[in-house]
Amino acid sequence: MSGKKMNVAIVGSSGYTGGELMRILLNHPKVTVSAITSEKSAGKPITTIFPHLAGLTSLVCEPLDPDVISKKSDFVFLALPHVAAQETAFKFHKLGKKVVDLSADYRLSDPAVYATWYEHLHQHPELLKEAVYGLPELHREKIKKAALIANPGCYPTSAILGLAPLMQKGEVDLGSIIIDSTSGVSGAGRSPSLAHHYPEVNEGFMAYKVGTHRHTPEIEQELSALAGKRIILSFTPHLAPMNRGILTTIYAKQVSASDTAHLYSLYREYYKDAPFVRLLPIGRFPNVRNVRGSNFCDIGVYADQRTGRAIVVTAIDNLVKGASGQAVQNMNLMTGFDEAEGLRLAGLFP
Amino acid sequence: MSGKKMNVAIVGSSGYTGGELMRILLNHPKVTVSAITSEKSAGKPITTIFPHLAGLTSLVCEPLDPDVISKKSDFVFLALPHVAAQETAFKFHKLGKKVVDLSADYRLSDPAVYATWYEHLHQHPELLKEAVYGLPELHREKIKKAALIANPGCYPTSAILGLAPLMQKGEVDLGSIIIDSTSGVSGAGRSPSLAHHYPEVNEGFMAYKVGTHRHTPEIEQELSALAGKRIILSFTPHLAPMNRGILTTIYAKQVSASDTAHLYSLYREYYKDAPFVRLLPIGRFPNVRNVRGSNFCDIGVYADQRTGRAIVVTAIDNLVKGASGQAVQNMNLMTGFDEAEGLRLAGLFP
Amino acid sequence: MSGKKMNVAIVGSSGYTGGELMRILLNHPKVTVSAITSEKSAGKPITTIFPHLAGLTSLVCEPLDPDVISKKSDFVFLALPHVAAQETAFKFHKLGKKVVDLSADYRLSDPAVYATWYEHLHQHPELLKEAVYGLPELHREKIKKAALIANPGCYPTSAILGLAPLMQKGEVDLGSIIIDSTSGVSGAGRSPSLAHHYPEVNEGFMAYKVGTHRHTPEIEQELSALAGKRIILSFTPHLAPMNRGILTTIYAKQVSASDTAHLYSLYREYYKDAPFVRLLPIGRFPNVRNVRGSNFCDIGVYADQRTGRAIVVTAIDNLVKGASGQAVQNMNLMTGFDEAEGLRLAGLFP
Amino acid sequence: MSGKKMNVAIVGSSGYTGGELMRILLNHPKVTVSAITSEKSAGKPITTIFPHLAGLTSLVCEPLDPDVISKKSDFVFLALPHVAAQETAFKFHKLGKKVVDLSADYRLSDPAVYATWYEHLHQHPELLKEAVYGLPELHREKIKKAALIANPGCYPTSAILGLAPLMQKGEVDLGSIIIDSTSGVSGAGRSPSLAHHYPEVNEGFMAYKVGTHRHTPEIEQELSALAGKRIILSFTPHLAPMNRGILTTIYAKQVSASDTAHLYSLYREYYKDAPFVRLLPIGRFPNVRNVRGSNFCDIGVYADQRTGRAIVVTAIDNLVKGASGQAVQNMNLMTGFDEAEGLRLAGLFP
Repeated sequence: MSGKKMNVAIVGSSGYTGGELMRILLNHPKVTVSAITSEKSAGKPITTIFPHLAGLTSLVCEPLDPDVISKKSDFVFLALPHVAAQETAFKFHKLGKKVVDLSADYRLSDPAVYATWYEHLHQHPELLKEAVYGLPELHREKIKKAALIANPGCYPTSAILGLAPLMQKGEVDLGSIIIDSTSGVSGAGRSPSLAHHYPEVNEGFMAYKVGTHRHTPEIEQELSALAGKRIILSFTPHLAPMNRGILTTIYAKQVSASDTAHLYSLYREYYKDAPFVRLLPIGRFPNVRNVRGSNFCDIGVYADQRTGRAIVVTAIDNLVKGASGQAVQNMNLMTGFDEAEGLRLAGLFP
Repeated sequence: MSGKKMNVAIVGSSGYTGGELMRILLNHPKVTVSAITSEKSAGKPITTIFPHLAGLTSLVCEPLDPDVISKKSDFVFLALPHVAAQETAFKFHKLGKKVVDLSADYRLSDPAVYATWYEHLHQHPELLKEAVYGLPELHREKIKKAALIANPGCYPTSAILGLAPLMQKGEVDLGSIIIDSTSGVSGAGRSPSLAHHYPEVNEGFMAYKVGTHRHTPEIEQELSALAGKRIILSFTPHLAPMNRGILTTIYAKQVSASDTAHLYSLYREYYKDAPFVRLLPIGRFPNVRNVRGSNFCDIGVYADQRTGRAIVVTAIDNLVKGASGQAVQNMNLMTGFDEAEGLRLAGLFP
Repeated sequence: MSGKKMNVAIVGSSGYTGGELMRILLNHPKVTVSAITSEKSAGKPITTIFPHLAGLTSLVCEPLDPDVISKKSDFVFLALPHVAAQETAFKFHKLGKKVVDLSADYRLSDPAVYATWYEHLHQHPELLKEAVYGLPELHREKIKKAALIANPGCYPTSAILGLAPLMQKGEVDLGSIIIDSTSGVSGAGRSPSLAHHYPEVNEGFMAYKVGTHRHTPEIEQELSALAGKRIILSFTPHLAPMNRGILTTIYAKQVSASDTAHLYSLYREYYKDAPFVRLLPIGRFPNVRNVRGSNFCDIGVYADQRTGRAIVVTAIDNLVKGASGQAVQNMNLMTGFDEAEGLRLAGLFP
Repeated sequence: MSGKKMNVAIVGSSGYTGGELMRILLNHPKVTVSAITSEKSAGKPITTIFPHLAGLTSLVCEPLDPDVISKKSDFVFLALPHVAAQETAFKFHKLGKKVVDLSADYRLSDPAVYATWYEHLHQHPELLKEAVYGLPELHREKIKKAALIANPGCYPTSAILGLAPLMQKGEVDLGSIIIDSTSGVSGAGRSPSLAHHYPEVNEGFMAYKVGTHRHTPEIEQELSALAGKRIILSFTPHLAPMNRGILTTIYAKQVSASDTAHLYSLYREYYKDAPFVRLLPIGRFPNVRNVRGSNFCDIGVYADQRTGRAIVVTAIDNLVKGASGQAVQNMNLMTGFDEAEGLRLAGLFP
């Protein structure tokens, strides 16, 4: 059976999303991880960087050489910082490999918006046009045919899945959208910094990048496309003392009064074919603890009669549905596997 | 000097706010804690309930008998659950004692609103009329003359201090206010429950009582009074895995465009005489870690030009400025002490 | 393929070990969970008790009726409190079912020792004689033939695996053994109590049941058997603010001086066929974070030349190798499956 | 009264012990912090480094110039890394200032031992002879007369206080001592590193520097002096996911059998004049949560009849009694203030 497995490479394997790709792919019945790269750890077994993988793999990191990697792999995951990913994606694409890019480089379809928010000119605008935004619940059919997937950001995944059903149906005032998110610390990556030094984070809670976070235009792009109108919205990220998870609380003014049952039906219909969206029963709301380690996005809805607002709460694991799990979900679609292959794992609670 | 100290009683001393009153008052140069009550721990030294106080006090809990307590004390703090506090406040008031009630019982001036949200008929509507809402930054002069203070809720303290300057000046659309708060777990009290069992909370994050939390009418009451108009707003509490702290992120549509410098001036002016409000420099936002154990409320402001919204972030320690510290601040005002007496303590970081 | 799967029942499914059995067994390729019981949640879907399992199972809890459960199941896991498990194990055994009992009821081969430490007379001493202590690394062959397995305690698993190689070879002074362990809070179970209320545990660390913990005789029994002599040792458990994990640090006086390389060889040889023991390279020591969610036991060894002591550190996930994972490992052995079937999952880091 | 206050300087104010010195000294009735230094933050207000101190001080960091600092200050605290502190202590000493050095540089009376464990030749062996090890419970009288205090390490404080009564009376086998300690993360300082990056520490627990930690010779020196014999012991530090606190569990073989009441009397007598040692009632053991933010050392004792071992558990706040609080306690003694002046603060619980 091993002979029939697809060979996949993980480029940039030493960060948290790289480690999480390993965890998921080592358990995936249809693929073999055939190459992993890390500049700073080249020559070292991945288990020296991620001791939790000991006993499960003997892979050794190698430096990034697209030609070498391409010979070993049919499919490539890029877990590199933005800008760095841009050129690498281009090279693997040229070498004919299907690519899922976990960075932000191919998410914003308008290079001008990219330049504004990321302060860097896009080097491959022509490839950008081919890239598909990899949120399967919105773009499943396009993803199946795509050669390059821009894997969504963690916050955008939680926000867009929470708002999509409201957008498509013109249910809410498009100028009234407020998205309030809280993330665990793994979302900030694995590079040490004072801001994420343990005693600075533990027993702390803060908002950051208020009004200026780079995930804002990504959310606006996808919601605008769904609504058919340009949307400007407020998005505020917060940092909580926990390893994983994003909880997003969304507020939007309803165009006409409706009750929670109405919202519930709307969401149930919208996500009826989505294997990883779990709509919670009326009266219950998500908790990130219930999606930890799994690819699920939990959603709870509420129509607040007092204020006329729809309030939607979503929860994902930022490293799974918000990154590596969604990347594998995209790979499954791109290669004709079952969408949920290798991803039907229960979360870890407690 | 001890002879001149004021004797104060803590009624309901076994909960977290009771313990925190002890911590603060044992260090207060002008008072002596003369009596503490706890029904279930009557006869036990307080240090068996709060071992962190060992070596600092030899007080023993006694059952609650207002006549007995009144003989020993000039001033009474009530740290009882709502409903229970109602009658007790009445008794001490009748006995001529000044009272700070930390429960919700005397916070809502309209007994009908109390009945709606607390599902209990108010037993002392006449006393309710005399009670003063104990937020010194808004009601300092009234507090000085009050005999009964309704000590504000933790969430309302963080929300009202964040919005007051905007209210008074008609700066924002009153129908657009959204308050998104996150609290540490001590806000839920000291009674064990599955919801606050360690492994259920740790590495979790959730919204709760969406659209229905009892602190909502309290916030609306105070903001409506400031604005001179009835305000209905959205308030969503969240629970974070930490012991203490409330961070509140507030959104309101500005009536006319202005920049952050304008908001900053507005807040600086409004709080120029408030010893416990710290307005952060433009570009910085609060973190609950910086107010842990202290009576400060930190505030950061931002005028979001993209959306036309004012975004305000506040941080308090829910047990200090959100409860026991504020109660002592009220006592200081009621008795003619310096407002900050015994409260100039730095927070504990890290 | 479903037709060939073995039907297994989980008796007592609402606690953490019950939930963890569900997580593991739902992913096990050779079994189907056919029945789950919970007295207090009878009639409720398991996903109301464990929302993290939503979307993966539609099982409903039923009351415990051994006859009913036996008709649906070929194999039974008991995740009940001690004493309660005693009779239930007996009934399923009589009904001809293979049983893994996760409680302490059948771990101590001497009923007098059980009576001393558990303050309860053993009701089925004859069945006790048949029970096998389910630590596969020590008793693999016996387990394969057993009908009733006493699944080891979490602390004993970490301690015995850390000491076994030293015992068998007479390497250390048997009177000198000290075992110092630290556990996450899930080890205390899912019933709320003040001691495990979030704010009481978080930012706390303590020793408990000093010199009196019930896992002591279990450790002594197994080590005595290995050494061929009666061993009395010190075992001190500690509670750390984390959900999962046990780290055990062991001290024993070496009979004759040797270096770390010697200890390393000894352990490598002893565990050469153990799929779930990972001996760390010399100079590295375990961290519970690396075994979280997995069935591994990580071991690091050190020969301290200054003091003449062997120091051994082990790490397990108390709910996996310390409970439910080991239970499944035992089931695999008892039923002829591969020992690691369904258990080759990587841990969740971070 | 301000005119009579003593001026003190904090050299190296940007680390956690520097911040903690500020917190304590700002509240100390008899001193004024007159100067603070930080090379990398010279010219910046301390509140930009420690926002929790905002509103309480307007001190600005300056570069370290002993002549300048000496003109402003009567007393100097050194919160510098070891080696760096060595020369600085020497300079201030020469300038006639009393100094408390929080580093390890003057703790080991034998320069050869210092050279072995710190891999650095001591530059001021003559000053080393004058330095007094600043553990007031052992050396109160010497401290009163000292000009240079070597403030004890955090682990040694917890270990020595736990063992001192046993040493002096020849109660235990000196070759049998095992010290097992667990610390919060602030003990590792404020410099970011992968090892103390939030997601690496949270939900983790590990032993580190097994058999090789530099605090070992410090503990051995003090205990040897008490016992009158050279002691070699085992000390193992662990890292727990919490900000503050050290819990130390100590094992030692009793020379002759005795019960817990005997140990209790021994400790009560030994610490009868120590204002910051709290001996817990028989049957209770310390928890670091009860000393958080305070200068107390809590101690619980147990005579284990089964094994013939004395087991002692101690708890301190590593930043207070383990560093800055103890430094202030030493200052109080050196300057004739009451030993507990400014240190009678309750800890922060929860």
